[in-house]
Amino acid sequence: MVSTTLKKHNFSAGPAILPQEVFEEASKGVLNFMDSGLSVLEISHRSKEFDSVIKEAEALVRELAGIGDEFAVLFLTGGASTQFFMAPMNLLKEGEKAAYINSGAWSAKAIKEAKHFGNVEVIASSKDANYTFIPKEYNVPADAAYLHITSNNTIYGTQYKSFPETSIPLIADMSSDMFSKPIDFNKFGLIYAGAQKNLGPAGVTLVILRKDLIGRSGRTLPSMLDYNTHVQKGSLFNTPPVFPIYVLMLTLRWLKAKGGLKAIAKHNEEKAAILYKEIDENPCFTGTANKEDRSLMNACFLPTKPEYTEPFLKLCQEAGISGVKGHRSVGGFRASIYNAMPKESVELLVEVMQQFARTQG
Amino acid sequence: MVSTTLKKHNFSAGPAILPQEVFEEASKGVLNFMDSGLSVLEISHRSKEFDSVIKEAEALVRELAGIGDEFAVLFLTGGASTQFFMAPMNLLKEGEKAAYINSGAWSAKAIKEAKHFGNVEVIASSKDANYTFIPKEYNVPADAAYLHITSNNTIYGTQYKSFPETSIPLIADMSSDMFSKPIDFNKFGLIYAGAQKNLGPAGVTLVILRKDLIGRSGRTLPSMLDYNTHVQKGSLFNTPPVFPIYVLMLTLRWLKAKGGLKAIAKHNEEKAAILYKEIDENPCFTGTANKEDRSLMNACFLPTKPEYTEPFLKLCQEAGISGVKGHRSVGGFRASIYNAMPKESVELLVEVMQQFARTQG
Repeated sequence: MVSTTLKKHNFSAGPAILPQEVFEEASKGVLNFMDSGLSVLEISHRSKEFDSVIKEAEALVRELAGIGDEFAVLFLTGGASTQFFMAPMNLLKEGEKAAYINSGAWSAKAIKEAKHFGNVEVIASSKDANYTFIPKEYNVPADAAYLHITSNNTIYGTQYKSFPETSIPLIADMSSDMFSKPIDFNKFGLIYAGAQKNLGPAGVTLVILRKDLIGRSGRTLPSMLDYNTHVQKGSLFNTPPVFPIYVLMLTLRWLKAKGGLKAIAKHNEEKAAILYKEIDENPCFTGTANKEDRSLMNACFLPTKPEYTEPFLKLCQEAGISGVKGHRSVGGFRASIYNAMPKESVELLVEVMQQFARTQG
Repeated sequence: MVSTTLKKHNFSAGPAILPQEVFEEASKGVLNFMDSGLSVLEISHRSKEFDSVIKEAEALVRELAGIGDEFAVLFLTGGASTQFFMAPMNLLKEGEKAAYINSGAWSAKAIKEAKHFGNVEVIASSKDANYTFIPKEYNVPADAAYLHITSNNTIYGTQYKSFPETSIPLIADMSSDMFSKPIDFNKFGLIYAGAQKNLGPAGVTLVILRKDLIGRSGRTLPSMLDYNTHVQKGSLFNTPPVFPIYVLMLTLRWLKAKGGLKAIAKHNEEKAAILYKEIDENPCFTGTANKEDRSLMNACFLPTKPEYTEPFLKLCQEAGISGVKGHRSVGGFRASIYNAMPKESVELLVEVMQQFARTQG
């Protein structure tokens, strides 16, 4: 067994593992925030302390993404599920068409919600193959308001390795691979990500919006549903989720200290390589996603015999490994190895897979 | 000076003071939640641990409110600002009328958002008197879909002491006095409250909805905006704000252990009596709200001379008292004395007021 200083190894798909240093700092902040003598849970969102937190969070997002003032950075609530309808509500005109690629259950939900606000053309889908690959053959209609994609498909373990070239604005739900690797964020019109994978705890949603798209739909909207409200008020139109934003900021600070997106990508590639190598070589397991589309965040694999499922999960549990049960729509196992997942935890999982193969040999 | 074991005395209007025991428990949970070896920030919202948290939170709400199965209890996000439009969107039919009482800036915002969805009749308002009282003279139109009120007006320090008798559903924004005293919660069709005053940290909204009102407007809504979605899924349609719900549960557990609403009401009345007595007797200060409508949560008072403002705030700061600067639309001072505010902190504030009067005498 690989020796490890960690008691538990959390492979959950989300809410997911965050850096241990972040837990420690956040725990202190709950008792005494920035030596204010107050808890971070009781400070005003208008206080100078929180002002410094949200400003640092925004600056870190801008620095990591390499984006300028033509983009707004927002910290909202309601997760990707809220962005599924806010995006078309704000960007799609009555009677206009939006293009969507359906690469998984979350894409399908985005498509469903967009239909409330205009015509939706699904220009490519891997649904018939139970979403085992990222669709690559399609034409993007030039008259669509935008093209929407899901950059990483948590349930099926697939991930875009390159993004569509489009003349129309590109929208991406990046909830499960945001800031896991360097990409050209300037290519996108709108990016949104529920924090609870790579960015922070559940309860805050990061939105990056190209400002020229604000008000595109021309709809008169309730204040809270209008991106412009939040842009004008710097995410402080209403009381924001103070603590989730604080922990997001701590997590991005950690990411920057680790060397930023280039360094974390190397770390993520190494972890994924170790794990997929074992999946491919171990006779007891088989991967589910097309190899070229394999996600660096979520590795999905099935037992080669159904009766392996329970004993393997039991062995994982004994080793302190949690969260590896696969989603019901794929079955088997899923190991989520987000930014904060240490390499030693992946090595331990591989050891357990090898141990399992020996006992079944 | 009153001796006190507390370093800081947080009179903020919200996010606001929570019980010290809650901070301590929450801080531990961030490192190791329920001895799971995991942080509460990384556990799945589908885990058995979080299931026990949200179930206990709901049970505590039901017990404290004394409500039965005819009500749904939801934990949502987006604060009262989101309920301002979700309530009419879900409850007000196209072309129908809703009645509103305008008792402050938050009422006015609720009115503004409701106008997106139907006709709004403001049946009473204290706006012309800068909201110094709770309107009491009005007729509730029997053909309105509902009557909406704001039970406590944080900015102006006024509070309903009794609620309107209506034949139509009564909706109340109770963000700033929820669970501060026993009331008949069964009288209401819909109650909502941003947590960040009496209930928990910013990032979660408590909604109590009479189930027969679900779908009343007949509108086809995006999933996240339809109360029915959240009722059907027990607030787990999407990833909920795990940590804010956890701290809300801890806060309600504390409230129950303190003796529930009857005991907390006594505690709140005592604190308010001490503070208002000083406001009335101290020559340097004068209250702003009508006496009969004075809030037990937020006491607003002005200096009798404008030049008192800065030195009094300075004296407060030296005594470790924070958050007493009044809202810009009233000026002067505001002391928010929510459930978790200890009596000793109020006594200290009174001492500081007396000390100030002596130095100015």
